[in-house]
Amino acid sequence: MSTSTKPPSGTRDFLPEDIRRREYVIGVVRSVYERYGFEPLETPAFENIETLLGKYGDEGNKLIFKILKRGEHESTGEADLALRYDLTVPLARVVAQYQNQLPKFFKRYQIQPVWRADRPAKGRFREFFQCDIDSIGSTSPVVEVEQLSAVSEILTRLGFADYTIQLNHRALLSAMLEAANVPAALHGEALVAIDKLDKIGRDGVTKELVARGIDPPSVEICLRALTSESTFDDIVSGHEAARQPRAHIDRILGLLAGTPAAGHVAFVPRLARGLSYYTGAIMEISVPDLAGSLGGGGRYDNLVGMFLGRDVPACGFSLGLERIIVVMTERGMFPASVGGGNADVMVTIWNDASLADAVLLAGDLRNGGLRVDVYPEPDKLGKQFKYASSRNVPFVAIVGDDEKANGAVSVKDMNSGAQQTLPRADVAAFIARTSRTS
Amino acid sequence: MSTSTKPPSGTRDFLPEDIRRREYVIGVVRSVYERYGFEPLETPAFENIETLLGKYGDEGNKLIFKILKRGEHESTGEADLALRYDLTVPLARVVAQYQNQLPKFFKRYQIQPVWRADRPAKGRFREFFQCDIDSIGSTSPVVEVEQLSAVSEILTRLGFADYTIQLNHRALLSAMLEAANVPAALHGEALVAIDKLDKIGRDGVTKELVARGIDPPSVEICLRALTSESTFDDIVSGHEAARQPRAHIDRILGLLAGTPAAGHVAFVPRLARGLSYYTGAIMEISVPDLAGSLGGGGRYDNLVGMFLGRDVPACGFSLGLERIIVVMTERGMFPASVGGGNADVMVTIWNDASLADAVLLAGDLRNGGLRVDVYPEPDKLGKQFKYASSRNVPFVAIVGDDEKANGAVSVKDMNSGAQQTLPRADVAAFIARTSRTS
Repeated sequence: MSTSTKPPSGTRDFLPEDIRRREYVIGVVRSVYERYGFEPLETPAFENIETLLGKYGDEGNKLIFKILKRGEHESTGEADLALRYDLTVPLARVVAQYQNQLPKFFKRYQIQPVWRADRPAKGRFREFFQCDIDSIGSTSPVVEVEQLSAVSEILTRLGFADYTIQLNHRALLSAMLEAANVPAALHGEALVAIDKLDKIGRDGVTKELVARGIDPPSVEICLRALTSESTFDDIVSGHEAARQPRAHIDRILGLLAGTPAAGHVAFVPRLARGLSYYTGAIMEISVPDLAGSLGGGGRYDNLVGMFLGRDVPACGFSLGLERIIVVMTERGMFPASVGGGNADVMVTIWNDASLADAVLLAGDLRNGGLRVDVYPEPDKLGKQFKYASSRNVPFVAIVGDDEKANGAVSVKDMNSGAQQTLPRADVAAFIARTSRTS
Repeated sequence: MSTSTKPPSGTRDFLPEDIRRREYVIGVVRSVYERYGFEPLETPAFENIETLLGKYGDEGNKLIFKILKRGEHESTGEADLALRYDLTVPLARVVAQYQNQLPKFFKRYQIQPVWRADRPAKGRFREFFQCDIDSIGSTSPVVEVEQLSAVSEILTRLGFADYTIQLNHRALLSAMLEAANVPAALHGEALVAIDKLDKIGRDGVTKELVARGIDPPSVEICLRALTSESTFDDIVSGHEAARQPRAHIDRILGLLAGTPAAGHVAFVPRLARGLSYYTGAIMEISVPDLAGSLGGGGRYDNLVGMFLGRDVPACGFSLGLERIIVVMTERGMFPASVGGGNADVMVTIWNDASLADAVLLAGDLRNGGLRVDVYPEPDKLGKQFKYASSRNVPFVAIVGDDEKANGAVSVKDMNSGAQQTLPRADVAAFIARTSRTS
């Protein structure tokens, strides 16, 4: 008993109630994604280590869980595998590996856990689910529009009304950095700092930008641009390189009219997104009562090329399942039915001789469509009732000696306490009917 | 492009068709388990390494994937976490950790991947799914009966008719080993060898038993007992210790009458099961055309005690998802609907000006309950048709200039080639109706 029975730091056990909530959300996510023509894909939990290293920046490399080589190599401490850090890099590998099997416009969804050796904190875990959609093969704004529309439909169906989706374009940020005379070599670093604007504020970002070697006058121009759309437009409008990306953003906004995303999406110059692989439109969802985002995504037209040897346009969106569940739980957004117990009825055991009757009755009730638990052993009836009650099972079925002699079953309604004796053939229908109307 | 794009050795990428097949089987498994009152549970992919080490025997220890400590410890080669090797040990940990929250009779199902660094071979993977049910807290034969019944119902619903479930009891095997004068210290080793009887035959097992230090006369007695039920009974019947286990087995067999398992379960003396933690009834499913089993399980009344400090009765059954899928695929057992493509209809793009129309039409059709793909960019109509055809999308919707002017949509049936123009409001219902009847 020296072993701790807690799950490892930063991970969680999901007890039945937790799973039911998660499965409810996943059910909505999956059905909407399928409605939009996305197809399911799953990849292994671990990848060859070189598949992941170098894809997420220096910080990312450190947060990757690495797996020891097996057998004789185990003692060398060498790692040859690593746990999936996101669902995007594995997708890029899959697109390269199965290029001849996959359609020209491959649209997949993937709902799987990822692992990051982050410092655990409230709402930040080392194992968490991502729900991703990605569209491979087209540069058309229809791709972003369909993704924004699908994500909005999911949020609406889950009961969110107050979410906003910020939209920006990496090329516009580059134009701004250029206009502010930030050297191209520092653009990546600058974006990582700018991405924290909502989190650490104007002063925090100023400090970080200066610390990363950017001149104070340049920093000043950037921050003015980032906090006002009109200043941003003024600053980047002179740049030829900004014209096409700005048109792409406007096209997306225009096409969203009449879709579930209408009214929720806005162009926000300060949106930067941390990941280094984005190349075009970037998007992020937030709700007022959650620091951080419910999800985000963007275009990454070069990542597939790192595996395939030629670039393929790609755009994706990832929903954070844990954060959605946190907000829904805090706001009480789960339908009552999601909390349902483990059974519609529990069959009691009258005595040792009636085990067979109990098992067969359970079978009949299951054939009648009910979820049926069987108290596993003979026990005082009062104790069995108490157990059913503690488990929130709404009905209990009893086949005592009298019932057995008459081909009957007594049914106790655990909410009202009422008990009645019914012909055995009528029990399943009675319970189904009474459950529906109560 | 030096990185291989294959998944790691022994693992697989699951493309859409694979996922659909798997989700179909998981759907049946889950719905039957829930019908039997089992509740969902999930645990983290990795456990603290000491949770797993020493639970699966020496062979098992070697097959556990170990994860390097993070940060400054990474270079020491020390591992502090390990990937889940099965779902039973994590369950035992969970039962100990949440003893005050869980019901007295905790019945859970768990459908998650496990990882074993086995040598990859046909049908043997390093990442594979287990579908487990376990019942904690009761020694009653109702537990085994309900599990055997649930598993049989799953197999029947999936279309299996020819499966058999072997049933034995570890205490009967112990009695046999005792009767054959095998020293108690060698019982564990002997069972590991006996477990291979179907795989390596009588001679192979004889050799292994002798190699493990068991006297040839003892080996001879064991093998006679294992290949004939009546000899087995003769040999163990003198043992008082065999009486209760034998009665337990007979009780289980008796209670199965009238359940979905009836006619499929038989007492088989040679069934041993490899894992060391079994203490009572053991069970294993097989079908004629598959070497190895589709699943198995048994009682393990001491494992929870390794975490909790006091023993708790427990019994579980695990279905091997991969093997079920292999047999179903080879036999063509999947319903045609499982192979369905990614969409019921594809909306074409007439020209750049009609992107918005296409997006809105897609939205309408989705609201009508259809799965809708949108060709993402303007292209020759013939090319768009060809694409839909290659993707097995049965209908294509076109909003050309004429259709737009008339509030109409043209719908092409990709199977018959027939095309007709309908009022826009009627399209979803038309496609749904035509899909159903074709």
